[in-house]
Amino acid sequence: MTSHIDFQTDPSRYRHWRVDYDGDVANLYMDVDENGGLFDGYQLKLNSYDLGVDIELADVVQRMRFEHPEVKVVVMRSGKDKVFCAGANIRMLGGASHAHKVNFCKFTNETRNTFEAAEADSGQKYIAAVKGACAGGGYELALACNHIMLTDDSSSAVSLPEVPLLAVLPGTGGLTRVTDKRKVRRDLADVFCSLEEGVKGKRAKDWRLVDEVIANSKFDDTVAARAKEFAAASGKATGKGIALNPLNRVIAEDGSVQYSLVEVAVDREARKATITLNGPDQPAPESLEALHAQGDQGWMLRLAREFDDAILHLRLNEMELGLVAFRTQGDPQAVLAHEAFLLAHRGDWLANEILAYWKRVLKRVDVTSRSLVTLVENGSCYAGFLAELLWAADRSYMMDGEFEGDNRPVASVTLSAGNFGPFPMGNDLTRLQTRFLAEPEAVEALKARIGEDMDSEAAMEAGLITYAFDDIDWEDEIRIFMEERASFSPDAMTGMEANLRFAGPETMETRIFGRLTAWQNWIFIRPNATGKDGALQRYGSGVRGDYNMQRV
Amino acid sequence: MTSHIDFQTDPSRYRHWRVDYDGDVANLYMDVDENGGLFDGYQLKLNSYDLGVDIELADVVQRMRFEHPEVKVVVMRSGKDKVFCAGANIRMLGGASHAHKVNFCKFTNETRNTFEAAEADSGQKYIAAVKGACAGGGYELALACNHIMLTDDSSSAVSLPEVPLLAVLPGTGGLTRVTDKRKVRRDLADVFCSLEEGVKGKRAKDWRLVDEVIANSKFDDTVAARAKEFAAASGKATGKGIALNPLNRVIAEDGSVQYSLVEVAVDREARKATITLNGPDQPAPESLEALHAQGDQGWMLRLAREFDDAILHLRLNEMELGLVAFRTQGDPQAVLAHEAFLLAHRGDWLANEILAYWKRVLKRVDVTSRSLVTLVENGSCYAGFLAELLWAADRSYMMDGEFEGDNRPVASVTLSAGNFGPFPMGNDLTRLQTRFLAEPEAVEALKARIGEDMDSEAAMEAGLITYAFDDIDWEDEIRIFMEERASFSPDAMTGMEANLRFAGPETMETRIFGRLTAWQNWIFIRPNATGKDGALQRYGSGVRGDYNMQRV
Repeated sequence: MTSHIDFQTDPSRYRHWRVDYDGDVANLYMDVDENGGLFDGYQLKLNSYDLGVDIELADVVQRMRFEHPEVKVVVMRSGKDKVFCAGANIRMLGGASHAHKVNFCKFTNETRNTFEAAEADSGQKYIAAVKGACAGGGYELALACNHIMLTDDSSSAVSLPEVPLLAVLPGTGGLTRVTDKRKVRRDLADVFCSLEEGVKGKRAKDWRLVDEVIANSKFDDTVAARAKEFAAASGKATGKGIALNPLNRVIAEDGSVQYSLVEVAVDREARKATITLNGPDQPAPESLEALHAQGDQGWMLRLAREFDDAILHLRLNEMELGLVAFRTQGDPQAVLAHEAFLLAHRGDWLANEILAYWKRVLKRVDVTSRSLVTLVENGSCYAGFLAELLWAADRSYMMDGEFEGDNRPVASVTLSAGNFGPFPMGNDLTRLQTRFLAEPEAVEALKARIGEDMDSEAAMEAGLITYAFDDIDWEDEIRIFMEERASFSPDAMTGMEANLRFAGPETMETRIFGRLTAWQNWIFIRPNATGKDGALQRYGSGVRGDYNMQRV
Repeated sequence: MTSHIDFQTDPSRYRHWRVDYDGDVANLYMDVDENGGLFDGYQLKLNSYDLGVDIELADVVQRMRFEHPEVKVVVMRSGKDKVFCAGANIRMLGGASHAHKVNFCKFTNETRNTFEAAEADSGQKYIAAVKGACAGGGYELALACNHIMLTDDSSSAVSLPEVPLLAVLPGTGGLTRVTDKRKVRRDLADVFCSLEEGVKGKRAKDWRLVDEVIANSKFDDTVAARAKEFAAASGKATGKGIALNPLNRVIAEDGSVQYSLVEVAVDREARKATITLNGPDQPAPESLEALHAQGDQGWMLRLAREFDDAILHLRLNEMELGLVAFRTQGDPQAVLAHEAFLLAHRGDWLANEILAYWKRVLKRVDVTSRSLVTLVENGSCYAGFLAELLWAADRSYMMDGEFEGDNRPVASVTLSAGNFGPFPMGNDLTRLQTRFLAEPEAVEALKARIGEDMDSEAAMEAGLITYAFDDIDWEDEIRIFMEERASFSPDAMTGMEANLRFAGPETMETRIFGRLTAWQNWIFIRPNATGKDGALQRYGSGVRGDYNMQRV
């Protein structure tokens, strides 16, 4: 059994995916190595997947954005003969702890969302070219693509057999994308989700489950033609990719991690981690050439990659930590200079990708199921996109004035254009819009204060932070808060935070992480699914699950 | 222990509430009888409530609409000295089965929603006049009112102490109303929901938790003045109320129920119930005078009351039934005549109330956690508002053509203006809009077919039903479907249906029944809350819950 789950990989280490690059089209083959499971105890048959398969997929998608900006269309295919993908591995699901299962699903959901984000943010479109069985999580993979092509033969069908076969939900976006993306009529969706064998051929198209059904003999040609057609229609900014090199990273025994710009200090006894993000160690690029020459060593991209990795590490490897505290240290003006450079050059593919990546990283923070607190200490650099952490967190504490023996600059918060658009939450509002849902005019008023160096009094008055404490109270107040938080039921915190963080409108994304995930989590601990006589445990035994029949 | 939960009551039987009527203002006092619990094993101390208290409250709200249309403002108060309401009774929650707990919460949520509906649909506004502790479900009661007044003394505070005290959520709308109705800033909401003692005085107003904070000495006068002021500003249609008399109802041993217009046939072995709604047994009223003279004996109101009671009965008393089938029998033209009369007279308070009640009843169907199927048989009357059952159900089956030995009129479906606005779902779309989310133009096109007697072919072609079967296949297909449905895990069905039924936009209402409820259900079966060492069980023992610290 793997003791440490590593989210870093690269193509030389892939066991489950390969990509053929063909100009502006990339052909992505899923060809899962049965014996390449992340844990012992199951084989990844029929292109089924576990977290390890998905870590590679997330890496593919990320490299497609940064290393292959020339790609306008990604065609997802199976590398196996009779099966597209059989979904999440059932033995893995049956054996995994509840916390692992839920965090696995969250990560796969985030990865599915990156398919859609690739088109929305960069004009890189995903096509699912489905031959063979496309079941459960396999169809959810296809649903995350923006165009689904299905071959018309007797063995190729799309299906969501979770409910009849496994007594769980198509919970990796399946139910939500069926109703809200594909907009399948709800009674047909009900029939579809009750059919073990799924739907094929013309009916799949009629029911809006796929976009095209194509005779087997013409399938490959049609897929190729469609890819070329979409590529020709794409206005994607392009250029020469940059390499995403391995992160500079040292992981300690106690779970702490040291990166080049990010430090993760784990305190298992106090059930908390502190993530420190360091400000720029280099001036903002002077030109696009300089930005491209820096590649993955540029400050904003390096910080994003390290921070992203740190969050995933804590999520999957340090499950008993209830609290994550964010700190920054650095020069706010330098932060603003880096951000301003990228915002001024959004037409450049790389500048755009770095900003879009920060959007994804901040969204990953938003749905991280730990209590999040932002500490605004002296010497910190909560400016522009880093100030988003103030409002991504459940609350924030700011140092008020000079602290004895502390010669760092007094704590400040600085808004930028970055706080008013480029990094929306999953609900499609900015964090400031969500925060000031009751007073949209307050957000407008804050625009006039862009660039102002706001001290704790100004930040409190503007409603940007929760608390400000001076030298006398700071340490005690933080300690009391952290101890209290660590004493609460982790489940209650998860449920509370999932509800309080997303006020305002809902999107497909918030519904996947909200409604769908919550129901799936509930089902995941019901004996009907995961009990010893439940459907997940009995799957493959020829005996159905033994169900408690009370309707809840 | 109560063996049968009865949702019918009347003021002469109330143990927990009383109302003083004062012209256009009603003063509603919560004064819970400690010894009046629905089940044994707990006392309803400190104005805490159980399902029985809420059944009375729902009855109060309903009678306020029909028996007291002169009331423009309802002031909710406590009949006790030091406490407004302590929320749901914790011992009751600790002892109740999961299915009871969840169904109890659903009903209380529906009752809270009726406060808001009373203002939105009828101009009847609820004020919470809070003196004393207003905690948990008590504050959720206040949150459901559209104006919250808090007295400013040392012992009066609003609080949601569920998370710190009980390791469960403020799940009866609390979290959702804090963020989306009161629009409390999310970090302040986080602080508020972590504070056992809650928030009082000016801070409660500053944080948007209440609308007014008033010195104790002026409280009663200010409440009275505010009530008069709101009443004067209300444009509510008014008139002389009608009496809601006891339902004509016979309940059989096997759970079946016979009403005057509704029959509930329970088949426990097959785990299904069939609800038959009978068409008009009287012509549509010829005048408003006639409508008022009929009172609660008019067909549409009587049918609504009986149907509503039937659904609640099945939810709480027959928890192992997985499937509810809807049937209608009657004259579609007569149905349309009754509906058209009410729609033509919406300016009349009673016509408006009957329509608004049907809106609530149909919403109750939407969130009923049983598989719902509508059977369109020969002789049925799916016309106008009754046709909504076709799209409230998870699927619908229609008889196709003549059936041997069946001399009833061939099955038909008839649309009316009622299908295009007056009965929206919780997502604020009509059921047709939700159904045809992919094709809004299809809904427009259907408007042209209002009044058309659509046979099964026309109904299939228009997408109004799921399946049509002829004499040869009908019985087998229905049987197979029902048997299959009954074999699935009830939990998976609950989760699937909760996701498939509400496509499109979300509202506070859909979020309460979707996201918030799902998280609460999850927490309700986690050992941290309901295990033997969980917080709910240990509450009052002086020992905190023993928590598994893994974050999920």
